[in-house]
Amino acid sequence: MTLLRPSRRDILKLAAMAPAFALPAAARAQLGAPAGANPAHFRFTLGEAKLTILSDGYFSMPTTGLGVNADHAEVAAFLEAHFLTPEQGYSHTNHLLVELGDAKVLVDVGSGNRWFDTTGQLLANMEAAGVDPSEITHVVITHAHPDHIWGIRDDFDEAIFPDAEYVMGEAEHAYWMQDDLVNKVEAAEQQFVVGAVNSISVDGVEWALAKDGHEVAPGIRLIDTPGHTPGHMSLVVESDGKQLMALGDSMSHIHTNFERPEWYNGFDHDGDLTVATRKRLLDMAAADRMSVLGYHFPFPGVGHVMREGEGYRFIPALWQFPKG
Amino acid sequence: MTLLRPSRRDILKLAAMAPAFALPAAARAQLGAPAGANPAHFRFTLGEAKLTILSDGYFSMPTTGLGVNADHAEVAAFLEAHFLTPEQGYSHTNHLLVELGDAKVLVDVGSGNRWFDTTGQLLANMEAAGVDPSEITHVVITHAHPDHIWGIRDDFDEAIFPDAEYVMGEAEHAYWMQDDLVNKVEAAEQQFVVGAVNSISVDGVEWALAKDGHEVAPGIRLIDTPGHTPGHMSLVVESDGKQLMALGDSMSHIHTNFERPEWYNGFDHDGDLTVATRKRLLDMAAADRMSVLGYHFPFPGVGHVMREGEGYRFIPALWQFPKG
Repeated sequence: MTLLRPSRRDILKLAAMAPAFALPAAARAQLGAPAGANPAHFRFTLGEAKLTILSDGYFSMPTTGLGVNADHAEVAAFLEAHFLTPEQGYSHTNHLLVELGDAKVLVDVGSGNRWFDTTGQLLANMEAAGVDPSEITHVVITHAHPDHIWGIRDDFDEAIFPDAEYVMGEAEHAYWMQDDLVNKVEAAEQQFVVGAVNSISVDGVEWALAKDGHEVAPGIRLIDTPGHTPGHMSLVVESDGKQLMALGDSMSHIHTNFERPEWYNGFDHDGDLTVATRKRLLDMAAADRMSVLGYHFPFPGVGHVMREGEGYRFIPALWQFPKG
Repeated sequence: MTLLRPSRRDILKLAAMAPAFALPAAARAQLGAPAGANPAHFRFTLGEAKLTILSDGYFSMPTTGLGVNADHAEVAAFLEAHFLTPEQGYSHTNHLLVELGDAKVLVDVGSGNRWFDTTGQLLANMEAAGVDPSEITHVVITHAHPDHIWGIRDDFDEAIFPDAEYVMGEAEHAYWMQDDLVNKVEAAEQQFVVGAVNSISVDGVEWALAKDGHEVAPGIRLIDTPGHTPGHMSLVVESDGKQLMALGDSMSHIHTNFERPEWYNGFDHDGDLTVATRKRLLDMAAADRMSVLGYHFPFPGVGHVMREGEGYRFIPALWQFPKG
C-alpha cells in the first residue's frame, strides 16, 4: 500500500481551508499558568489504583454541531435551561493516568501545539502534577481525532513518550490507514485524516492493535465503543471490585448525552451506532455503579451515572483534598 | 450585661464532652499539601468582579443529621442513589473572596486549628492562591458556627485580619451574645456557644452589625436568610447585571436541599424557617438565573439552580482554566 505521509506544510494548508479549526503557530511557546491560576490536575484513588486527571486545556465549538438529529432550537433551549451558552459549547480535555501495579497508563496524548492555542497543555500539567513523562509504560489512544492523538509528536516529530507501549484499536488503525482515505472524505474532514495518518505513522512507535477485551496491564482493559469513530475504544480500570471507565468520546457532554442519549453530534462518524453504544454504556455504568470519566466533560470529568426518568443524570464525583 | 469569656481551657473541656467534634491539638502544625496534591482554590469572574473560592479543608459527619424530619431510611436510600455514602456525609468549606472596586471581601474565616484536623487550611490555601491576607478590606461572617468563625483568631488570640472591617448580622450577634445562652442550650450545643462568644469577642475587632440589605461595599450586599441560625445572612455580589449569591449554610447539600428542599438538618436552628428561606432562595436564584455558592457544596461549590419537576437541580459551574 502507498503510505500517505503529508508534510507539516500540507497540514497547515488544509487547516487554512477549514478556518473553524485554525492551527496556532507551530512554534507557539507552551504558556505556563499564571501564579495562583486554577490548577489542571486532579488525583483520586480507585481500590489500589492511583488515578490522576491531567488536562490538555480546553476549546470552544459552535453548538450547531450538537444534537444534529434534533431540532436546533430545541437543543439551544436545552442548553440554555442548563445554564450553558446556546451558541458556543465548551470542551474540556481530561486525560486519565492510571498507576496500578507496575503499569503507568496514559489515555490519549492531546493535540500538542497543532490545534487550538488553548490546548496542548498536557506535558506542562503533568509537570505541575509531579508526573515524570519518562515513567509512562503504556499510551492508549481511544481514537485518532486531533485532540486525542495530534500531540503524539514533539516539535522534532519524535514520539513524546519514546519508551511506552502504544495501543489503539485494530479497527481504528485500519480505518485511518486505509488507502487513499483523504480523498474519500468530505473536505472539512481531510485535515483530520492527514493529522491522524501523520500521528499514527510517527517514527519510533510500534502499535499494539487491540480487539475488544484487550488487557493493557493487569486490571486495565479496553472495550469496543464504536460510533464516534469506527474503531473507538474505551478503557476500564478495575481494582478491589471497583470500576472506572474512561469513555473517551463515546460520551462528550454531561447534559445532552445523559438526558437526551438519542441525540448525536456532527462529528460522530456513525450517529446511530454512537447512540446504541452510548445507551449500552449508560445502562452498564448505572447498573454496575461504575465511575465514568468523559474526556470532554467539565474538569475533572469524573462521576457516576444515575437513572432518572427515561434518561440519566451525571453525578460529578466529589473533589478530593489531600489528607491533613 | 455579664460578658461570658471562657478560656481556651473551657473550650477544650467542653470539646472533651462532645467527642464527635474532637478538637485537634492547639499547637498542631499547619500541614502543607503534598507536592502535586489537588489544589484548593478556584478563580473566576462575574462581570467586573474577580472571585476566588478558597477552601478551609473538609470534614465528615454522620448522615443521621441530614433530613431529620424525613424517614432516615428514605434519606439513606436517596443518598445511595446519588452515589453518596449513606452513613457518612461530606462537607467541603468554600470561602468566597470578592475583589470589586477597592474592596476585597472575604466571607467567613474557617475554623482555624480549633476544630477538625482536616480543616483550618484557609490561610495556607490563600497563600497558594497568591492572595495577601493583609489586603482583605472586609470580613463578612454569615453565622457564628465553628467552621465559619472559630478561625477568626490566631494562636495568640489575635484577629487574623487585623485591618479589615468585620461585619455580621445584628440578629446573629444578638443571639449568641445574649446573657447566659450557654446555660439555655442543650449540652451538645454548649461548645458552639462558647466558641461563638469567644470568637465574636476577639480582641481588636469592632463589629459592624448588618440588617437586611446592608451594603458592604458597592455591588456587595447582605440579605437576611434566617433559619439555620437565628441571624444567618447571605452575601450577594452584583456586577454588570450578573449576580452571585454566597449562600452560607442556608443550603448545604447539592442533592438533598435541591431535590428535597423540605428536608431540614439536625443543626438547623429553626427547621421550618430554614425550609421557608431555602424555598425563597431557590425560587429567586432559578428565576433570576443567579449563580450560587454553597459553603459546604462539593468544591468549588459554584453553580446555578435549575427547576426540575417539583424540585430543583444544582448545575455545577464549569471549571475555568487560565487563558492560554
